[in-house]
Amino acid sequence: MGRLGVAILGATGMVGQIYVQMLSRHPWFEIKAVTGNSSVGKRLGEAYRGKGHVPSEYADLEVLSSDPAKIDADLVFSCLPTKAAREVEPKFAAAGFPVVSDASAHRYWPDVPLIIPEVNPEHIELVESQKKRRGWDGYIVTTPNCTTVGFALPLKPLVDDFGLRYVNVVTMQAISGAGYSGVPSMAILGNIIPYIDGEEPKVSEEPRKILGTLVDGEIKPLDVQIDATCTRVPTIVGHLEAVQVELERDVSVEEVKESLSGFIGLPQKLELPSAPRRPINVFDYDERPQPRLDSDAGEVPGMVVSVGRVRKGKRPGTVMFVSLSHNLIRGAAGSAILTAELLYALRKVR
Amino acid sequence: MGRLGVAILGATGMVGQIYVQMLSRHPWFEIKAVTGNSSVGKRLGEAYRGKGHVPSEYADLEVLSSDPAKIDADLVFSCLPTKAAREVEPKFAAAGFPVVSDASAHRYWPDVPLIIPEVNPEHIELVESQKKRRGWDGYIVTTPNCTTVGFALPLKPLVDDFGLRYVNVVTMQAISGAGYSGVPSMAILGNIIPYIDGEEPKVSEEPRKILGTLVDGEIKPLDVQIDATCTRVPTIVGHLEAVQVELERDVSVEEVKESLSGFIGLPQKLELPSAPRRPINVFDYDERPQPRLDSDAGEVPGMVVSVGRVRKGKRPGTVMFVSLSHNLIRGAAGSAILTAELLYALRKVR
Amino acid sequence: MGRLGVAILGATGMVGQIYVQMLSRHPWFEIKAVTGNSSVGKRLGEAYRGKGHVPSEYADLEVLSSDPAKIDADLVFSCLPTKAAREVEPKFAAAGFPVVSDASAHRYWPDVPLIIPEVNPEHIELVESQKKRRGWDGYIVTTPNCTTVGFALPLKPLVDDFGLRYVNVVTMQAISGAGYSGVPSMAILGNIIPYIDGEEPKVSEEPRKILGTLVDGEIKPLDVQIDATCTRVPTIVGHLEAVQVELERDVSVEEVKESLSGFIGLPQKLELPSAPRRPINVFDYDERPQPRLDSDAGEVPGMVVSVGRVRKGKRPGTVMFVSLSHNLIRGAAGSAILTAELLYALRKVR
Amino acid sequence: MGRLGVAILGATGMVGQIYVQMLSRHPWFEIKAVTGNSSVGKRLGEAYRGKGHVPSEYADLEVLSSDPAKIDADLVFSCLPTKAAREVEPKFAAAGFPVVSDASAHRYWPDVPLIIPEVNPEHIELVESQKKRRGWDGYIVTTPNCTTVGFALPLKPLVDDFGLRYVNVVTMQAISGAGYSGVPSMAILGNIIPYIDGEEPKVSEEPRKILGTLVDGEIKPLDVQIDATCTRVPTIVGHLEAVQVELERDVSVEEVKESLSGFIGLPQKLELPSAPRRPINVFDYDERPQPRLDSDAGEVPGMVVSVGRVRKGKRPGTVMFVSLSHNLIRGAAGSAILTAELLYALRKVR
Repeated sequence: MGRLGVAILGATGMVGQIYVQMLSRHPWFEIKAVTGNSSVGKRLGEAYRGKGHVPSEYADLEVLSSDPAKIDADLVFSCLPTKAAREVEPKFAAAGFPVVSDASAHRYWPDVPLIIPEVNPEHIELVESQKKRRGWDGYIVTTPNCTTVGFALPLKPLVDDFGLRYVNVVTMQAISGAGYSGVPSMAILGNIIPYIDGEEPKVSEEPRKILGTLVDGEIKPLDVQIDATCTRVPTIVGHLEAVQVELERDVSVEEVKESLSGFIGLPQKLELPSAPRRPINVFDYDERPQPRLDSDAGEVPGMVVSVGRVRKGKRPGTVMFVSLSHNLIRGAAGSAILTAELLYALRKVR
Repeated sequence: MGRLGVAILGATGMVGQIYVQMLSRHPWFEIKAVTGNSSVGKRLGEAYRGKGHVPSEYADLEVLSSDPAKIDADLVFSCLPTKAAREVEPKFAAAGFPVVSDASAHRYWPDVPLIIPEVNPEHIELVESQKKRRGWDGYIVTTPNCTTVGFALPLKPLVDDFGLRYVNVVTMQAISGAGYSGVPSMAILGNIIPYIDGEEPKVSEEPRKILGTLVDGEIKPLDVQIDATCTRVPTIVGHLEAVQVELERDVSVEEVKESLSGFIGLPQKLELPSAPRRPINVFDYDERPQPRLDSDAGEVPGMVVSVGRVRKGKRPGTVMFVSLSHNLIRGAAGSAILTAELLYALRKVR
Repeated sequence: MGRLGVAILGATGMVGQIYVQMLSRHPWFEIKAVTGNSSVGKRLGEAYRGKGHVPSEYADLEVLSSDPAKIDADLVFSCLPTKAAREVEPKFAAAGFPVVSDASAHRYWPDVPLIIPEVNPEHIELVESQKKRRGWDGYIVTTPNCTTVGFALPLKPLVDDFGLRYVNVVTMQAISGAGYSGVPSMAILGNIIPYIDGEEPKVSEEPRKILGTLVDGEIKPLDVQIDATCTRVPTIVGHLEAVQVELERDVSVEEVKESLSGFIGLPQKLELPSAPRRPINVFDYDERPQPRLDSDAGEVPGMVVSVGRVRKGKRPGTVMFVSLSHNLIRGAAGSAILTAELLYALRKVR
Repeated sequence: MGRLGVAILGATGMVGQIYVQMLSRHPWFEIKAVTGNSSVGKRLGEAYRGKGHVPSEYADLEVLSSDPAKIDADLVFSCLPTKAAREVEPKFAAAGFPVVSDASAHRYWPDVPLIIPEVNPEHIELVESQKKRRGWDGYIVTTPNCTTVGFALPLKPLVDDFGLRYVNVVTMQAISGAGYSGVPSMAILGNIIPYIDGEEPKVSEEPRKILGTLVDGEIKPLDVQIDATCTRVPTIVGHLEAVQVELERDVSVEEVKESLSGFIGLPQKLELPSAPRRPINVFDYDERPQPRLDSDAGEVPGMVVSVGRVRKGKRPGTVMFVSLSHNLIRGAAGSAILTAELLYALRKVR
């Protein structure tokens, strides 16, 4: 049986590179087309020149424009910039393509699932009402902001095991999160920028949807308040997050560690190709996780979220920890690929 | 009238350099002696070779050992390592010297004042009972950990104006906070270390003493709970701190900003030489403060604490902001010099 | 007697900021106007928001467009981008303004002097033929590329004292040399880019003109071959250059050091306000100069070129050293200001 | 047939980690023992805590002391610090072990081969006279300084094809070259140190021995002069070197590129497991090689030396290029492993 053909919309950016690298050795998917903007007509290898690597088997792919009529694929990944995504993704869905997007454009539409495969695979059912309501043959499924996934994934077992009342998260985000040219070196070398435009509202809202419940074809958000402070720091990959949670009951550090490290979800049960054996890795000693050493953790590098420094806060029921996730893999391309694997396993892709 | 002669114990380290630079243009104080450890017998300029600058007028000072019998000075600054401080500072106090120390060795002694001159100048009175109890002619006054001062100073007007119930602080601390050789470059370049040994207890406890009340010759700590997560980031100077406070009543962002930016303390009223006109600078736009741009803020560079991103949290009474302070100046040498100026103005130094 | 009024064309960029800071405390010059492009109509303080500092006395200057009809000034500094400079600077010269430019647009015109004030002040005479030939009331004087000045200045005493046959220079250039947004952080954090577009030809040619001789109203370039390799490294300011020279005779290290450190030029003799007492500082020990510690060297910070590691090469007559210069000050704004001071002292500005 | 048992002396340092990682998937060699100093008695995993990764199959190896009597192995790798190497390596050789060392202690002994396997495999014959002269059952073979290998390897085809008269090399060396704690972050963040103690003499001398000829059981060094300037820059791995060579005749850029990229040596002919298909990779466009993107080049990551910017100098016969090599792999562990593979293939290890 042949592999599924996939297309990558916006393949010439930094996340695009990661898709190409991850899919160059994928058992189920094969890249059939890549699209870009200013580099349409070039070979993919040329589009990356000076900025990164492209696996040799895909270096000669021609960069196409993001036009459904020109694309032959069973499924489409989108890492388009927000504005382009807003325009292009619905066209692909209307043309019958399943679209898995890590762009923010449609994340907050009530009939678009926002998926972390281990956390809320059941939300995928939303695509049925989406297709019906919009009259599409295809559909759009989205993955969260790169910052959201790093703490929303560890929140899942805590919600299930202890109940969750409140979250305060302070993020230290890597420069790659803003795209290749997003952060000038003059802005960040030896520096921190204590603000990322538009980030905190996403970080405060997305986990409520992801951790919400599917009721009568609609998602009822989790009733939890989330405060966020998002900063940019001079690291290359790996968003580090200092998280404080208030749980519904007082718990021991050991209970929390067991809840986190023991957690598995549907991708693990289905043994999806990009699913790590355990999605959360808990460090027992204080100096870890560190972005440069641990962002690549996992059998599929970058798919594991690392948690460390689990300890109790001064107030009853509060727990503090730091989490680290690879913002380009678990926070973007890897999550989307795992979501596509889930769609395929659930027979949402032919 | 001549200037007061001062000595610097531990002058050959990184904070020592800052003392020498700040005192090279000081209207009241003049450096009479410097001490070191491995560089005893060298000239000060030689001891700094390859690592920094020493003002030419002090380059030829001989590095002495930290022995009270060898030092002729009216006041002694100590930036000794903890262990040496524990041993040496009491000897100087016993020998009649007023000692102003930024080391942690004696900060937590009940009869040793822990001073931020704008916050708790009245605690200086503790030295009288200290001298009596210990039978010393001199005394020890301490300044806080470099991380404490960055948020304890802004807490002061909030305590006074609104009452304070709880603090959560996540710090992003510059490498200079660990001394010249404290952080290997392999550990921190493009990286974050989510833990600093021994730091969080200091950060959680010190503000309670500093913001406490002097009652019957003893300090009653402020009743407030403080959670802290301390991280090391690849910045050179300037500790950035993401602070969340819970106040006793709901307040507007404007009220908080006015409380912070309007705050002045005794050093301002006395117009001490190293006192900035306003100790807290509040930014009105989101991108600031930044360590590389703003650590040097103030008429006396590095003495102002910068605050930005003042906003309300999701829960009533909670307010969030980031603060930035120069860890070597406001967090060490500058605070100690300002404290010494206060001691002099209050006639605690002859 | 009042100060001379000056305008800064392109004042909103990174070099523009340096001009404003240096001129905010200048004894002879006073900023009367600033121009920009996308920020025309804004206040200068607003144009720098989030990126840097502007002295308070100039924060409210309105950013004008670069139109000679709108500018009232005795002299004009230009730090415009090349393309804009090509178009705008001749208009100002034609309108009667003396223009001192650090842009590359007109550096290579045979009748435009390319000045390092200590090296070739006599080339200023070229402006007379420039004015005559072009029928201008004003004129254009240029300063070299930021990389050129770091080694062309130390070459001057070597040419004079020993004769120069060949130069090989390898540069390690700071990110600020490319402008605020010139180098993405993803390109340079923990990295080196072994190429800077268009830089090496400038570096190979400019010293030949600067060190050339004015003969019959034309500059005869110095007959020397210069090979250059220009790289970008993750430093913020300060271009470090590893220089190898072949002199016309074999010399001792001591002779070279004395030649360099003893060198003074016309700005020193005239005691111009921005002239350092000695333009070249020679380090005697191996670890210096370093960009972060030494870029600011000099009584007027950033105006001294630091040289270190002077030693003999394996072949007779070859000498090797490293040099460091502040690319925004000695390599741009500071050189232009010193040149303007020279013009004023030589009565080329009324 | 089983794999050869090897021991790693000094396994707990940064290069030690690389040995363990490379040997964890090696077809011929298996780690039987590791030695350390301060961590003797610990498990290897514990010794790396907070600093790096150890493959799980070796995490429980006990760290032994460097005593031949305690080690059971067919071959010994040494990455001991110089002083320890000087003392320990001869003991192992006397005790019958073949020792492959990347330490500098014995590199310059006339009867100790200094090997780059592609360049001078025939020098291995020196071990026979070494054993005889010293009465050892084992022997010592060394690999060059991490900086040497990056340009000595590309020099080999140039020597063979065009003849070589002179080399000038300016290096920009990564912090990992100095060991985990070798470079304090305060020294190097946003900075360059223009000097590395003891490095330049090694860099100037080693290629002469490596490129020399074995005549009557002795090595006659290549008659070439090499000038070197060695600097430390804030990159993590990958030494970048700007090289200028003077060849015996004038050549075209194309001839040089072909000479470099076409070069293969004995390891390629023998298809040794760690030999890249082509040891030198030549880039055709200007922006590469870059340390962060290209240090890992090669089928066995880090074993390829990348060359870029090949161009002619101003003087006839001079050619300039930049080269990049992974200082921990091709510059240390990888070279030693490839050398051991060569020894095994040449039946110098039973």
